Amino acid sequence: MAIKRMLCNYISVAGYSSTASVLKIGDKLKKTRVFVRKELVEFSKVSFDENPLHLDSEFARNAGFRDVIVPGMLVATLFPRIIASHFPGAVYASQTLQFRLPVYVEEEITGEVEATSIREVKKQYIAKFTTRCFNNDGVLVLNGEAMAVLPTLCPTDP
Amino acid sequence: MAIKRMLCNYISVAGYSSTASVLKIGDKLKKTRVFVRKELVEFSKVSFDENPLHLDSEFARNAGFRDVIVPGMLVATLFPRIIASHFPGAVYASQTLQFRLPVYVEEEITGEVEATSIREVKKQYIAKFTTRCFNNDGVLVLNGEAMAVLPTLCPTDP
Repeated sequence: MAIKRMLCNYISVAGYSSTASVLKIGDKLKKTRVFVRKELVEFSKVSFDENPLHLDSEFARNAGFRDVIVPGMLVATLFPRIIASHFPGAVYASQTLQFRLPVYVEEEITGEVEATSIREVKKQYIAKFTTRCFNNDGVLVLNGEAMAVLPTLCPTDP
Repeated sequence: MAIKRMLCNYISVAGYSSTASVLKIGDKLKKTRVFVRKELVEFSKVSFDENPLHLDSEFARNAGFRDVIVPGMLVATLFPRIIASHFPGAVYASQTLQFRLPVYVEEEITGEVEATSIREVKKQYIAKFTTRCFNNDGVLVLNGEAMAVLPTLCPTDP
């Protein structure tokens, strides 16, 4: 363990807000994404969710939105993606999601996970994160908490 | 409202456990799905989550699983799919997810949402559901709670 920690101190990690290279409480990992219309169709095909709010602009406008909205679960995929890109093999244990504002296609959305608790159990790490998505104006559109089992605390450079 | 309720009493609803056709507390809506390997690749493409646990059998086996596991967020898409298939235009407000057991490809998974609270706000309905997924042995693999804004309480026949 001591050797592992020492070794991973030399790994350079991009997009990682901490100067330390071992995950610690308060560290934030981020990823920005723009969801495009085509991806909403692809997501519908794999989820079999055909809610017209995500696929039919006219239906969405009649429901009071300015266009189709990105499915909440698709926005939420940012969180496991961020965690797994730094910690391949991470096992998701839980996630809470509060959908605060609609996310529209072509909006730039930044997902952020911030470590709030880390404990070692049987040579793995149970890490808790606050999870947030912001739009390009910095307004919170989605938040919650996640817990994942990490095989290591040394993040890779995704 | 009274007319709407009366009218929707005549709609026949498949896969809907209540004899009434207006959603009420205690009603359960279900959908069964078998996730296949190809869908895990498609989900990875649209989520950009390349966690090898979902894509690389050897990696998954080395991590202690018997094969690749279905991404939790993909399993969780069963819940909004079930809700939106009966209530097109439903807006997802929140979801909690506790991933209890790994879900493997080719397993038959039944998603179930059970209405626990319904209240009318400005001619729409805020409905809360307990949300559960079971494997083919009836074992709980995923559970949580969801809240959605429904445009009507008259379920369609998906």
